[in-house]
Amino acid sequence: MRERIFKILHDNLGEYVSGQKISSQLGITRSAVYKHIKALKAQGHKIISKSRKGHMLLDSPDILSDFQLKCRLDTIFIGNSIFVYDSIHSTNRLAKELAEEGSVEGTVVIADSQTDGKGRMGRHWISPPAGGLWMSIILRPDIKPNNVACLTLVIGLAICKALRKLTHLDIGLKWPNDLVINGRKVCGILMELSAEVDRVNYIIAGIGLNVNFKSRHFPGELRSTATSLYIESGQRYGRKEVALQMLYSIEQHYIGFLQTKSLGKMKEEYKKLSIVLGKDVVITTPEKNLYGRVVDFYDDGSILLVDDGNEQHKILTGDVSLRLY
Amino acid sequence: MRERIFKILHDNLGEYVSGQKISSQLGITRSAVYKHIKALKAQGHKIISKSRKGHMLLDSPDILSDFQLKCRLDTIFIGNSIFVYDSIHSTNRLAKELAEEGSVEGTVVIADSQTDGKGRMGRHWISPPAGGLWMSIILRPDIKPNNVACLTLVIGLAICKALRKLTHLDIGLKWPNDLVINGRKVCGILMELSAEVDRVNYIIAGIGLNVNFKSRHFPGELRSTATSLYIESGQRYGRKEVALQMLYSIEQHYIGFLQTKSLGKMKEEYKKLSIVLGKDVVITTPEKNLYGRVVDFYDDGSILLVDDGNEQHKILTGDVSLRLY
Repeated sequence: MRERIFKILHDNLGEYVSGQKISSQLGITRSAVYKHIKALKAQGHKIISKSRKGHMLLDSPDILSDFQLKCRLDTIFIGNSIFVYDSIHSTNRLAKELAEEGSVEGTVVIADSQTDGKGRMGRHWISPPAGGLWMSIILRPDIKPNNVACLTLVIGLAICKALRKLTHLDIGLKWPNDLVINGRKVCGILMELSAEVDRVNYIIAGIGLNVNFKSRHFPGELRSTATSLYIESGQRYGRKEVALQMLYSIEQHYIGFLQTKSLGKMKEEYKKLSIVLGKDVVITTPEKNLYGRVVDFYDDGSILLVDDGNEQHKILTGDVSLRLY
Repeated sequence: MRERIFKILHDNLGEYVSGQKISSQLGITRSAVYKHIKALKAQGHKIISKSRKGHMLLDSPDILSDFQLKCRLDTIFIGNSIFVYDSIHSTNRLAKELAEEGSVEGTVVIADSQTDGKGRMGRHWISPPAGGLWMSIILRPDIKPNNVACLTLVIGLAICKALRKLTHLDIGLKWPNDLVINGRKVCGILMELSAEVDRVNYIIAGIGLNVNFKSRHFPGELRSTATSLYIESGQRYGRKEVALQMLYSIEQHYIGFLQTKSLGKMKEEYKKLSIVLGKDVVITTPEKNLYGRVVDFYDDGSILLVDDGNEQHKILTGDVSLRLY
């Protein structure tokens, strides 16, 4: 009930809502409303109450809170359980621990900062406090390990669409797991799976998004390759709002993915937002470097590269760089 | 040093070894030897010391101890770090936690009993105390997720050969992950991996072996399908000895596997010990049942089945039953 009252106040952020309106909308007495409002204030929410006017929620600072997130989530199962931390080693690692203990599909872990954040291939991921969204989601799809590459693209597409809608920035997809603006990385996805030979136990979808960082927040070596929503738009975004939009979009696209366990109908959308399709690139894999043009994506998430000798290569994952002439 | 003294005593189990011999062999003073022997006694080892004769280690009961295992291990890296527990939820789960915290390749977890032991496909695995060997090994090979099926067969082969040598029982391999005697299961392997799309973080090789159980130790529904080394041979085996032989063999075969990341030269040995090769079987997978004859194994660990319509099927994993006529 307290969450529903908070949601009403938040839907009318900065405006008074009468106690009468809340009580009739939720079918509880005005004194019950008053009791909950009092408790919300005690939790630290900035609510002003005036007789004859009602209650007004003031904008809250950009602090991540599981309560505020849960109140406002419109999803079916993603985020039903949310754990928010000031600082932990890595949201993916904590999510794995929770998954091992049996946490349900859709459980979300968010941290304000990570002390040991990880990127693809075991690389370090810079995760300072206050300006980023470091988030991991436990998924338990009935799929095989070789379906996971495709799910990476689906999650990327979901985030890309949510962020484009929210920011109107020209955000593109850099296969297999990055989102970029003007050629600079704004978001990375790290999919990790626990599996048997032919059966996925669970997947952790880890997401690192640079929201409100300024250029000086990045270490020197990253300044030319990393960016944030703030740097590109000059605008600060509430991380809660960003998280909510992303989680909603991820759930929608994930449900779509489960129907075919492949890119399926999402492929055309994915191709439109890809920044490597049709481009001359180098793809670096642990085995070799491949030079050629990106021609298509496969339903399983692989990329189709045609090399300079006109030979076709199907590549499951790797690092892509655009070739400059 | 204490471990080396214990090893000398154990190599001469039931016989006196003079303090002089130990001190000269290890290059330490006799009073240092005496001090270590005293400490070993304090640890609970049954050592008899007699003047003019020396020190004699009496056979110790079948209690698992990391100290005794480490003293006698002849491996390069498997078992350099061993954790032994009376009772834990599941050795695989604990090994995963250790791996997440950075435990090195070759770390071994052993438990006398498991409260929540797991078999393939999330099935429950009965793991009562005192008669079984429940053991998990952390491996960190530089392989791809689709190499893991093959590694399952390699580990099975390693265990099968070690146990055949130790017990002289006719132990066979039931693809993909069981060892059987006279058609009954004596050992199961559960391989679990943590991975990114195209890169293994680590693998947990979980092994459950029925050593000294009697038929009445098994729950009723398992009595016709499960067996133990004791049931088949009428002989009790020291679990430490069994564990040591298995770990040594696993390391040898694992090193062989790493060279080709496939069954390679081990395939012929594997085929000789397979109980399904050339047999008419049903293979049950989550998708369907396949009826046919097992004709071969692939280098990647898959099985080649020729069905009754003479069509070939390559199957990565599943449950095999022999067909009866």
